[in-house]
Amino acid sequence: MSVAPVKFHPRQSVEQVEEGIDLAPKFDDRGLITVVTTDADTGELLMQGYMNAEALSLTINTGEAHYYSRSREVLWHKGATSGFVQTVRELLVDDDQDCVWLRVEVAGGASCHVGYRSCFYRRVPVGSAFEQQHTDGHIDLEWTDTEKVFDPQAVYGDVPNPTIL
Amino acid sequence: MSVAPVKFHPRQSVEQVEEGIDLAPKFDDRGLITVVTTDADTGELLMQGYMNAEALSLTINTGEAHYYSRSREVLWHKGATSGFVQTVRELLVDDDQDCVWLRVEVAGGASCHVGYRSCFYRRVPVGSAFEQQHTDGHIDLEWTDTEKVFDPQAVYGDVPNPTIL
Repeated sequence: MSVAPVKFHPRQSVEQVEEGIDLAPKFDDRGLITVVTTDADTGELLMQGYMNAEALSLTINTGEAHYYSRSREVLWHKGATSGFVQTVRELLVDDDQDCVWLRVEVAGGASCHVGYRSCFYRRVPVGSAFEQQHTDGHIDLEWTDTEKVFDPQAVYGDVPNPTIL
Repeated sequence: MSVAPVKFHPRQSVEQVEEGIDLAPKFDDRGLITVVTTDADTGELLMQGYMNAEALSLTINTGEAHYYSRSREVLWHKGATSGFVQTVRELLVDDDQDCVWLRVEVAGGASCHVGYRSCFYRRVPVGSAFEQQHTDGHIDLEWTDTEKVFDPQAVYGDVPNPTIL
């Protein structure tokens, strides 16, 4: 696949960044931009990750989601190991261009290394539900999805778990 | 409103964090956790922000979204200035508990300080659309929402713009 380079504009003014047509992303002091990835059909939040400039450029070029793995410190073509490639149907930037929203279709239907469809499979009781549940201020999470789409051991084998305590 | 303190669990093991019922959020070296806020009805991504421990605790207690403003360096009750309060219908955490997902209802229907309904009102052409548009590698953003819900000048007046170049 030929990969034409994407050129980002320098950030010159608030008006340019917020109300213009220039793509002028703000990478933080680690060189990263925040990424929010939702299911293009259901709107479900699948994962939240990061891109460096190379990952953003490759995503725009190829139409497949690329991230930067902070735990492994490498460019990360999502699905390269698991097969769960994310095809980008729409990519949007926010007002100050320090966040990217990917609306994707997921091959195989899974996005979470733990095995669930989404990384967000537990709910925190809020407001009156919190009042009803809490006794000493500690909270019990509520499961919203208990069925794993795949077996992480079978898919990832000995690949180290990315979660950092 | 009485505000009972929320107690977070210490992070002790990957299994506890990923597969347990303990709320054990990971705040980064700035004391912040990433927040993704979507419209509870439409699934639209409204904004991406941050919380410190106090903001997360207040959100859980009150059922209204509180953030930490990095530009203003203050606790931020969303809507305190604009009136666009976000009522949290559901709050979820991700696998490694370093991200919070808020599904909200927004009073007044606006979440973006620029005046749009969502902060994500511009699209980046991806894949074949990028190939068709780009000539020198620069990208023209495409507007997805051109109608402002409110007039930022009327709502915020002289409050400084939060966008940092």
